[in-house]
Amino acid sequence: MEQKEISKAVITRLPRYYRYLGELLEDGVERISSGELSTRMKVTASQIRQDLNKFGGFGQQGYGYNVRYLYAEIGKILGIDRQHNLIIIGAGNLGQAIANYANFERRGFMIKGMFDVNPRLIGLVVRGIEIRGVEELEKFIVDNDVQIAALTIPKTKAPEIADRLVKAGIKAIWNFAHIDLAVPDDVVVENVHLSESLMRLSYRVCSMQDEKEKKNLL
Amino acid sequence: MEQKEISKAVITRLPRYYRYLGELLEDGVERISSGELSTRMKVTASQIRQDLNKFGGFGQQGYGYNVRYLYAEIGKILGIDRQHNLIIIGAGNLGQAIANYANFERRGFMIKGMFDVNPRLIGLVVRGIEIRGVEELEKFIVDNDVQIAALTIPKTKAPEIADRLVKAGIKAIWNFAHIDLAVPDDVVVENVHLSESLMRLSYRVCSMQDEKEKKNLL
Repeated sequence: MEQKEISKAVITRLPRYYRYLGELLEDGVERISSGELSTRMKVTASQIRQDLNKFGGFGQQGYGYNVRYLYAEIGKILGIDRQHNLIIIGAGNLGQAIANYANFERRGFMIKGMFDVNPRLIGLVVRGIEIRGVEELEKFIVDNDVQIAALTIPKTKAPEIADRLVKAGIKAIWNFAHIDLAVPDDVVVENVHLSESLMRLSYRVCSMQDEKEKKNLL
Repeated sequence: MEQKEISKAVITRLPRYYRYLGELLEDGVERISSGELSTRMKVTASQIRQDLNKFGGFGQQGYGYNVRYLYAEIGKILGIDRQHNLIIIGAGNLGQAIANYANFERRGFMIKGMFDVNPRLIGLVVRGIEIRGVEELEKFIVDNDVQIAALTIPKTKAPEIADRLVKAGIKAIWNFAHIDLAVPDDVVVENVHLSESLMRLSYRVCSMQDEKEKKNLL
């Protein structure tokens, strides 16, 4: 299968399909029509057919999708069939929240280590993962074949740490710091900017209120 | 200004403009050209002009944008000039990470309370915010004019709590639980699905690797 054929919009939607297919499997559902999936996911059946038909796993007309096959195929596209070694930089609440999320490991993301500058945190163990000093970062990345670093540190420290990560050969930064990182083209940055998410929510609440007020005035 | 004229794509970009304009203000920059802003933000100058010219705050050709005015205008659009009362449901690591993020308050999001079912957490205080039992939820929402609830609880508990929130009159749910919530049309749900973000990262890392391998084979 040519990965290049898959559009960015479809990629953005794939994790959600993956989640629903996983839930269907847990419920023992082996096949599902685009219509049923459409009702569950609240997207149109034609959108689903357009998104998923290219991945195969559907039999003759009327049979529906083979859930297990489709789940596995989407997992392959998303790279979840491979193991990714991950470290967390910043062992505060957010870093510890990620460390405690065991589901990531079920999807091939193995949390190998945590790092912090705070001497009170260094040496502590979160769900079997030791917190180390950041001075050990570069050696640890090489020794443990780490590809992904979650960055849960203040934005003022993030650019310097990002530089060190890139030099140490990291492939991707999962960036929770509220700043845009400058990295080479072959390093992936996936941002999770909580403030921006909260502002979008705020916008939607306010425009809904404004609309209601307008209606009441009419 | 007609809010309806602003497209969804622009809204998605506004929080990032707001962040950059805020940083410029902190640096004492009072005006900036679309060209300079383009270099900083790594988007094209024409994109910036297209996105921002409708908000005003730009003088004659060659003067550039009035940073303070534009910052205030975008803040108004995003509803950050109003106060939003917020509660956090789930006082685990993720809930505490949000409670500890003082920046939200600077943007008008006042964290009024935290809730949990764990008796070990109830009664504790995080940055001045007391953790209460969920049985107090409905009364607290009414008494404190709470509009937004951050949901940082496991997905199995989320639908039931969401129902209670809606009945108690909440306007928006900032949903970190890995499930799609069914709510009435006039309740906003903004999802932060960390697993999905990590899968998109994984996809991007894998397709970059595959491309490199392809090149090496040629």
